[in-house]
Amino acid sequence: MQSLHLRSMESCEEKSMNSSLTSVPSRSAQVRGFLKQNNLQAWIAWRPDELLMLSGYFPYWGASLLVYFADAEPILFVPQLEPRDHIPAGLRVQEYPWGDLKCSDPYAELTSAIRRALGKENIRPERVGMLPASARTTLPIQAAEQIPIPENFAARLSVVASTPNPTSLAAFASLYLRKTPSEVDAIRRANRVANVGLQAFHESLHPGVREADIAAAVESEIYRQIGNDGIFHSRAWAMVQSGPNSADAGRFNRSTGRRLENGDLVLIELATCVDGYWSDLTRTAPVDSLKSEVAELFEIVRDAQRLAVDGVRPGASAEEVDSLARNQVAAHGLDKFFTHHTGHHVGFRYHDPGFLIAPGIRDKLESGMVITLEPGAYVPQRGAGARVEDDVLVTESGHVVLSAAQGVSAP
Amino acid sequence: MQSLHLRSMESCEEKSMNSSLTSVPSRSAQVRGFLKQNNLQAWIAWRPDELLMLSGYFPYWGASLLVYFADAEPILFVPQLEPRDHIPAGLRVQEYPWGDLKCSDPYAELTSAIRRALGKENIRPERVGMLPASARTTLPIQAAEQIPIPENFAARLSVVASTPNPTSLAAFASLYLRKTPSEVDAIRRANRVANVGLQAFHESLHPGVREADIAAAVESEIYRQIGNDGIFHSRAWAMVQSGPNSADAGRFNRSTGRRLENGDLVLIELATCVDGYWSDLTRTAPVDSLKSEVAELFEIVRDAQRLAVDGVRPGASAEEVDSLARNQVAAHGLDKFFTHHTGHHVGFRYHDPGFLIAPGIRDKLESGMVITLEPGAYVPQRGAGARVEDDVLVTESGHVVLSAAQGVSAP
Repeated sequence: MQSLHLRSMESCEEKSMNSSLTSVPSRSAQVRGFLKQNNLQAWIAWRPDELLMLSGYFPYWGASLLVYFADAEPILFVPQLEPRDHIPAGLRVQEYPWGDLKCSDPYAELTSAIRRALGKENIRPERVGMLPASARTTLPIQAAEQIPIPENFAARLSVVASTPNPTSLAAFASLYLRKTPSEVDAIRRANRVANVGLQAFHESLHPGVREADIAAAVESEIYRQIGNDGIFHSRAWAMVQSGPNSADAGRFNRSTGRRLENGDLVLIELATCVDGYWSDLTRTAPVDSLKSEVAELFEIVRDAQRLAVDGVRPGASAEEVDSLARNQVAAHGLDKFFTHHTGHHVGFRYHDPGFLIAPGIRDKLESGMVITLEPGAYVPQRGAGARVEDDVLVTESGHVVLSAAQGVSAP
Repeated sequence: MQSLHLRSMESCEEKSMNSSLTSVPSRSAQVRGFLKQNNLQAWIAWRPDELLMLSGYFPYWGASLLVYFADAEPILFVPQLEPRDHIPAGLRVQEYPWGDLKCSDPYAELTSAIRRALGKENIRPERVGMLPASARTTLPIQAAEQIPIPENFAARLSVVASTPNPTSLAAFASLYLRKTPSEVDAIRRANRVANVGLQAFHESLHPGVREADIAAAVESEIYRQIGNDGIFHSRAWAMVQSGPNSADAGRFNRSTGRRLENGDLVLIELATCVDGYWSDLTRTAPVDSLKSEVAELFEIVRDAQRLAVDGVRPGASAEEVDSLARNQVAAHGLDKFFTHHTGHHVGFRYHDPGFLIAPGIRDKLESGMVITLEPGAYVPQRGAGARVEDDVLVTESGHVVLSAAQGVSAP
């Protein structure tokens, strides 16, 4: 009952918080604005994170395409093998024969179908944009390999579309920056799911337990959220580093067979994808009591992270927020052990495109942006590293920490 | 003791079996032969599965490059953030500043370093090949997103390398086909790890258990193999479909929140990556007793798979092996429910490049090839689908099923 009560309280808070994102244009206004400003009448989206952003649909195979028109309803082209039950209602859907053993070239049929759809609206190729490559997109639901669209596909589609100039490509990338209220809800849900995994992490911090066992338990809890609360896809990548291994966590994150010992700091890097939306969190926690120099390291990082979070508001620059964390670490002489950025955009991918929260970056925060804040310090001489990472929404007047959801219990 | 005993027996058997791959050239002979035949003096590998095949090294970040010379030892370029403890001993390694907050363009330094290395050997760009795109490569150890190399990287490297013509590209792809004895060992190990996951699958088939819970348990057992037997990376993608959901398994594989019921067929699709090498397995099993029409479906598929496996030998064509399975399914009038290929190459990826085991494919099997055999039938009218999939090595005289390892116990 306790958790249900807290959950319903949280829902009210969410509602009021999200509806306060009054200056963030709707997704369709953002996309149509982009098209008009770049003299385009249509956009062909084919990367899973593009599809998600433009339609809320997250592909299973990663072989779906969305034709988004400036002045007509979008059309989604899906492989005949694609599941249909998670395609948003109201989206026009056309099937193409990808996966049909008898069809030797499904992309020829797809290209023809797209050409017909564009012809119906009298749109010529030079008014149609698409990204030239799928590199760095997010993984689709079938996440064991990259999207199956062949390397020459973009070139083949040049009969119906053009590659935008660098200015237009940059303008397209900027569509990832400001999340709408419903997108924020989805990212918050990914964070709630991640939190279930983090509970398993905190509960497993006992001497003798192996890093890989902890990470496996966290991932398992997150996978098991499928089917709860309408979730159709939930998957995590958890990486646990303990004791001296935590001192490597500024360079890479992975789990080994090392067993936890009393006095360890234990760090978990946790990427979680729920129905296409991402959470990116890090927690550091002790096993039993820490040596004073390790405890100090942890407290410096925790304080640095809180200072950065407290500085998030519309108009603050990325370098200002970065310096709030970095100066705190430097004040204790540990700045050379804080070797990475303080944060990045997150939500449509584990790492969204957009400016970093890092030294020298003058871009300013705007309402609707969701960023990670993740200062760390990794000190081999102390046999320990620490990082704390939350996902933070920039509101109209300040910020909300999306990953601080309390009162969520495992099913 | 029992499992140890069986394990040591298996090792002896492996040794004799693998050493019998006498006609498979060594990896370096295969690669150097490819280079000479295509008039190349060096190859720049940058996809994780290329790196694995050419050097046995499986990258963490996916931002490493290997320069493979026809007449000199290869050089591996790794990000400064890359872990070093899993880089094969004896490989020349150079670091480049990817991940250095102070370096705005690490790829400029990387390009210069590669240019110097090629210059030292007096090799001009037209004698250096590389793939123009990273699409469809396997995921690196950091598997939550695609490799971080930017989209324009191949174009930038055109100052030191050329894109091979289609014939050379096809010749490069054919390097994936014949696995050497040590590569077969690694794929067999991936199958042994997968088998630990399959034990968890079989143990969890009880009414009331949810598909997602079963898949999560299987993935968890496989992740927990990290640290055992020298394994540094072990990750699985398990997808469980039960009862009527199994009838979808010819179109897609995913787990839902559905609870198992008596009389269900339950299908698991399991992709497992161990230190870069892949296993691809499917099992179908009943919950309690099946209706006769469902039991018959399962038996037809199981028999079809055994017939295909029995037909694997050097010189057999892909379509012949396919037809052994397909005719068996057709003999029972279910061929229209067997909608996909019978198999594909596997090992360096979940799906290796190379010909399919499918109707109309006349390519012939050769020793050292590792293929999946995975006939299935999915019959909505019976509320059930079935597939059985093993990974099968073509030997000098016949075949060995790599996924049938027994005597492996969880740690």
